[in-house]
Amino acid sequence: MPEIRWDIITEERVIIATERSRRPHDFKRTDAPAEPKPAFVPNCPFCEGNESMTPPEVDAFRAAGTQPDSPGWRVRVVPNKFPALASAGDANPRAQGIYTLADGVGAHEVIIETPRHHETPVVAPLTQWTDALRMYQNRLRALAQDEQLKTILIFRNEGKAAGASLEHPHAQLVGLTFIPPVVQRHLDGVQRYRTRHGKHPFEAIIEQELREGTRLVRQTERFLLYVPFAARVPYELLIVPLEPVARFEQMSEPLLQQFAMLLQDALQRLYTVLNDPPYNYMLFTAPAGYESEFWLHLRIVPRLSIEAGFELGSGVNINITAPEDAARYLRECDGAAAS
Amino acid sequence: MPEIRWDIITEERVIIATERSRRPHDFKRTDAPAEPKPAFVPNCPFCEGNESMTPPEVDAFRAAGTQPDSPGWRVRVVPNKFPALASAGDANPRAQGIYTLADGVGAHEVIIETPRHHETPVVAPLTQWTDALRMYQNRLRALAQDEQLKTILIFRNEGKAAGASLEHPHAQLVGLTFIPPVVQRHLDGVQRYRTRHGKHPFEAIIEQELREGTRLVRQTERFLLYVPFAARVPYELLIVPLEPVARFEQMSEPLLQQFAMLLQDALQRLYTVLNDPPYNYMLFTAPAGYESEFWLHLRIVPRLSIEAGFELGSGVNINITAPEDAARYLRECDGAAAS
Repeated sequence: MPEIRWDIITEERVIIATERSRRPHDFKRTDAPAEPKPAFVPNCPFCEGNESMTPPEVDAFRAAGTQPDSPGWRVRVVPNKFPALASAGDANPRAQGIYTLADGVGAHEVIIETPRHHETPVVAPLTQWTDALRMYQNRLRALAQDEQLKTILIFRNEGKAAGASLEHPHAQLVGLTFIPPVVQRHLDGVQRYRTRHGKHPFEAIIEQELREGTRLVRQTERFLLYVPFAARVPYELLIVPLEPVARFEQMSEPLLQQFAMLLQDALQRLYTVLNDPPYNYMLFTAPAGYESEFWLHLRIVPRLSIEAGFELGSGVNINITAPEDAARYLRECDGAAAS
Repeated sequence: MPEIRWDIITEERVIIATERSRRPHDFKRTDAPAEPKPAFVPNCPFCEGNESMTPPEVDAFRAAGTQPDSPGWRVRVVPNKFPALASAGDANPRAQGIYTLADGVGAHEVIIETPRHHETPVVAPLTQWTDALRMYQNRLRALAQDEQLKTILIFRNEGKAAGASLEHPHAQLVGLTFIPPVVQRHLDGVQRYRTRHGKHPFEAIIEQELREGTRLVRQTERFLLYVPFAARVPYELLIVPLEPVARFEQMSEPLLQQFAMLLQDALQRLYTVLNDPPYNYMLFTAPAGYESEFWLHLRIVPRLSIEAGFELGSGVNINITAPEDAARYLRECDGAAAS
């Protein structure tokens, strides 16, 4: 019998219909490279030594004495060469007859997470991967100074089926002058839940997930890794801190290191269980004005199925893998075996 | 300079960023079959003669004297073999701790649009294609009798990248016991616009599209085919009747014939301009209780790009083709040349 499950925050429904369910290895990535990737690719704009192929860097962690836009960096940030939004313009809405439009103003950066082409988060040394996430913090801190920007979204696209056009490990950052619908619905849902229940929904979620245990993948001292009750897609994962933290750049060094370890572990588990799946992750950190009440979280979405006419026309997802089954496979796997 | 455009109904933003724009033929379908498709495929469950491979039919247009689940049909409807929703169960929400779930109750049917495997809407004789749409009306009429169902969505997935698992021309119908988010946001937006402006937004849209002309693809006596001002993806198309019609099954025979012709023409134009693209279309007809005020429409979404982390994390689309450019290519093409 298919189930309807409600997302406890947005109150949106998901259909869990497992009749077509597959075992995890049947979700085989079809575009996975057959060969191990090389550490350097001559025409890759993100490889060390190819700095001239990108716009000038806006930030980097580099060895003492090395120059911007030259080798010697560990993590490097450049403007997106084809930005979705421009850094200057008039963000005020204007009319075109009955319609409304504005200049597309915002920020669009690329965070190159390693100088080495093959060094995905799954195989990167933890120190390198932690540096990459420390740079996420740096950029969030820098862009928080721009009063135009209300929301800063950092996300990662891995694999062609997840929309990645370049293979070299990188994340992207987009700064928006507004709060977009997905974030607004989350904020509205949190507000609604607090009013009704007197607590943040993540507090209630963490309590129940720890008690039930069936959707839990891993708990560390400060974080939880779990499959949401109303997961929209197979093997969706959430990482939340056990105590609220509003902005990612507020995480102390010990917290950041634990987060880096757990995110790497989550990606290694997906790699092992699902055979190197394409995925996206999105880091949700407090929009401007919500610093006191937001509870940051990171959502990982493996791209194992395609949204078709039903999903586009309804906004309802059909998830063919029960969250409890996904969690069990991920829990039982030894993530570190991937590296 | 990228642009932000607001959807006039939902008020959601779209980013139009044409720096990466491509000419239409660069959106080449990579999974397009090299060979012409045969009229009959021995192991295709939807081909005439293979009726025993599907669940028993629930409706069909058939030649006089032929038996159900045997050859002789022109259009055939069967339950989905792997239904996302079950026909019976308890749709009332129940609690699991803090969470809410219910049995997944609803309808899930497959409308096989032709007995012949190769006969896509682009190449089908107009009489056959009109029969297929007449069957959409039949099923909407039949399922309107089921008081549990609040929303009935008919959609079509064409091509693997649009989520089609079977090649034989078919649409699907899903009946839901609730109004899903995409439809609810549309209803809310229409209500808001009416309150502010005293008219239905489609009335205002049609006026402006006819006056501007830049996003128009084709106008017939009773319908408009156009690219929306805030199109979310390249070459998105809308078909709307010039005068409001609430439910698709209310369309008179002459209206249905004109709709069939225009929808076929739209798909032929996409086929020609974009080289047989994968696409979805969704038919939005009045949910139960909205029969007096809904304005039906059909939305066609070519699947030329992949939603990545930004879209998943924000709900904002980045469209790399200006709606006016898409409309010009589609307007200037002779759709019928595809067949």
